[in-house]
Amino acid sequence: MSSFQRILIANRGEIAVRIIRACREMNIETVAVYSTADKESLHVALADYSICIGSGSPRDSYLHLERIMSTAVSLGVDAIHPGYGFLSENSRFAKMCEECGIAFIGPSSDAILNMGNKSTARELMKNSGVPVIPGSDGLIRDLEQAYELAEGIGFPVIIKASMGGGGKGMRIVHNRDELASFFHQAKTEAQNAFGDASIYMEKYITSSRHVEFQILADKAGNTIHLFDRECSIQRNNQKMIEEAPSSCLEEEKRRQMGESAVLAAKAIGYYSAGTVEFLVDEDHNYYFIEMNTRIQVEHPTTELVTGVDLIKEQIRIAQGHSLSLTQDQVCIRGHALECRINAEDPDNAFSPSAGKIGNLHLPGGNGVRVDTHIYPGYTVPVYYDSMLCKIICLGADREEAIRKMRSALKELTVEGIKTNVTLQKRILSHPAFEQGHFDTGFVAKLIGQD
Amino acid sequence: MSSFQRILIANRGEIAVRIIRACREMNIETVAVYSTADKESLHVALADYSICIGSGSPRDSYLHLERIMSTAVSLGVDAIHPGYGFLSENSRFAKMCEECGIAFIGPSSDAILNMGNKSTARELMKNSGVPVIPGSDGLIRDLEQAYELAEGIGFPVIIKASMGGGGKGMRIVHNRDELASFFHQAKTEAQNAFGDASIYMEKYITSSRHVEFQILADKAGNTIHLFDRECSIQRNNQKMIEEAPSSCLEEEKRRQMGESAVLAAKAIGYYSAGTVEFLVDEDHNYYFIEMNTRIQVEHPTTELVTGVDLIKEQIRIAQGHSLSLTQDQVCIRGHALECRINAEDPDNAFSPSAGKIGNLHLPGGNGVRVDTHIYPGYTVPVYYDSMLCKIICLGADREEAIRKMRSALKELTVEGIKTNVTLQKRILSHPAFEQGHFDTGFVAKLIGQD
Repeated sequence: MSSFQRILIANRGEIAVRIIRACREMNIETVAVYSTADKESLHVALADYSICIGSGSPRDSYLHLERIMSTAVSLGVDAIHPGYGFLSENSRFAKMCEECGIAFIGPSSDAILNMGNKSTARELMKNSGVPVIPGSDGLIRDLEQAYELAEGIGFPVIIKASMGGGGKGMRIVHNRDELASFFHQAKTEAQNAFGDASIYMEKYITSSRHVEFQILADKAGNTIHLFDRECSIQRNNQKMIEEAPSSCLEEEKRRQMGESAVLAAKAIGYYSAGTVEFLVDEDHNYYFIEMNTRIQVEHPTTELVTGVDLIKEQIRIAQGHSLSLTQDQVCIRGHALECRINAEDPDNAFSPSAGKIGNLHLPGGNGVRVDTHIYPGYTVPVYYDSMLCKIICLGADREEAIRKMRSALKELTVEGIKTNVTLQKRILSHPAFEQGHFDTGFVAKLIGQD
Repeated sequence: MSSFQRILIANRGEIAVRIIRACREMNIETVAVYSTADKESLHVALADYSICIGSGSPRDSYLHLERIMSTAVSLGVDAIHPGYGFLSENSRFAKMCEECGIAFIGPSSDAILNMGNKSTARELMKNSGVPVIPGSDGLIRDLEQAYELAEGIGFPVIIKASMGGGGKGMRIVHNRDELASFFHQAKTEAQNAFGDASIYMEKYITSSRHVEFQILADKAGNTIHLFDRECSIQRNNQKMIEEAPSSCLEEEKRRQMGESAVLAAKAIGYYSAGTVEFLVDEDHNYYFIEMNTRIQVEHPTTELVTGVDLIKEQIRIAQGHSLSLTQDQVCIRGHALECRINAEDPDNAFSPSAGKIGNLHLPGGNGVRVDTHIYPGYTVPVYYDSMLCKIICLGADREEAIRKMRSALKELTVEGIKTNVTLQKRILSHPAFEQGHFDTGFVAKLIGQD
């Protein structure tokens, strides 16, 4: 059991502020690292020690493993919290921490590695009895096998390039007639794009929701879940609005999925906070997609409904403590929504909108939490993700949480840069959203990209 | 059952903002009234309609019944929320609302009247079986009766002028020998100060804590309590730090006091939110002091631990709805602390410190709620109470709540005016406060006024 005296936060923005506040409350000193582009950032002002580690480019600062490690070593920190993004799922960085005797506030490097490789993760989950999307379990040899697999899985199926990305080498096959031509098209495209024609097949889930379970596990193997979050409101695979709990799950389904999530974490000897992501189809079947081996942007929704401080739990677990609660002690009170307010220009395809913030009024009051690093006069740098703040609302039920969020967004004033607030308001006022009838394609349809 | 379309808020500052936010979440339009001194105030900016009703002097604006009523009538509001202070416990104003067919968001004018008269209230409570401080039950005829009463009550006793105030005509009598001279001194002083020599006697509680219970009651007579708040940290009878629940109550005592509080409310046919205040002595006896027939400054602490929105409940009750929960459904999760941040000059006997706020950074994040009407560049008027903001922290337990508050106060930056933050920090770091060992004299002793 160790007791951390000093923690380095290898991140920036609101999550760095969030972690610094948790450390302060635990009487742990904090070391902020920052890029020259972030010298006016709130996390720099709030930390006990702040060290500039490079220029604005992430590769030269927040992704620069060696500089962050030397800072950690020279300032004698006991642990490093990686936040989300940047180095948070970099197994090499976690390994480096392990080797330097500095606690990595997250899971073991092996757990990151196992879950980082999607085919390994799928295999591990399948063998542990966690439902995965039916598929080829490896590469497809030839067209004959493709026919066999597709019949077994049931149409529609999706063919994906093994080395794929950006939709290249990907084909949705709706029926047997389409299979032969799409099979060859995908292989050719994959060969041309990635120099590797290998492809695999999965069931294509037409209408689905993204539902994830928050996991907490300690080093002694105690593993619990803190129920679910609904994250189907996305634009270009970026979550915009998250809520806890999901409005689409029946209690029995929630129970089953919670068990699967715990099973998933146990299968890889997971410790720290983590998230098991599932797709839920129209028939309420659920399939493991991936596990995020870090804290997530949307973690506050779970904190508000469960009353558990996830960052502090992460720190306690890293110190070797047991979980501070058992599965039976986790209960949900109320309903929480989170809106990510991004510096984006809605008139310009939501491209990032950097610049100086003028007048700023953040909402507040009962049940309104704002996690942010911005302030009046703050200049949003061009280098990083465009999130300005997270507004998180807790209501007695979903309806109250939505009303509260609408009211909070009405109150929010951010001058000087463009934001996605208008789109957020549109979503929150949409009858289908209000009724909980939406899938991951909802935002795309709403803004007419479909 | 009525449905309010529009509510006038007969108040200013943070509580006006708090009420406007609740109304917005309920889709109710808001009318703010304001004095010329408050034209830059946040409540004016946030309300749907804002009407200037007079100059900075309270008598000319927030206390001006007629002007507020004419504004209410001319803007066709369905109800008036009085907040706290100002007209909130003015039975004439409540009566005027009743007569104008505008709902007063509070109890009946009779309930205000009954609880406003301290001797009537005491009599009502005593007859209903609510413990009151033992005393003379009326005026003392002569010295002989004073001896009898004091022997019956037990020393020390306190003699108070019936018309008293400011300590005039007040004497603490520690033993029989002191009685005769103090009796005559008190009478003479009362005669000189108030032109009325009548005095009464009460048991003098040497070391006591101020513990109050939050009540909710609907017009159908359903009455529940939402547990207790500890408000012993006071300076000059002004609460500085409140918490929910109190750390001094055993469960059985909490249950008894909760029952007494409900009994007190039922005894006067109370509806709306209200607070029953008790003194708790060293031997854990509790005595009714008074009932506040309005929402209180410290109500957020109860909101954070119970998850109940007290302002919305007030509004629902005024609309004729039943309570949204039963006594069995009220449960406490965690521990909440509230610090009142006042514009006061600690180097000048904590006299009010009006002026313009320069740089301002309010704390935020997980479990930190800030209720306020201030912003950077806001000028604190000289006319009103000196409260700038309330910082309310929710922790899993009292220790975490204290740590969170210390961290929040460390983060708070208010430039341009003087505040009581240093004193708040001193209290929060005091071992006796940490251990929950304090009484209503704690702050006076700390700052050496004793």
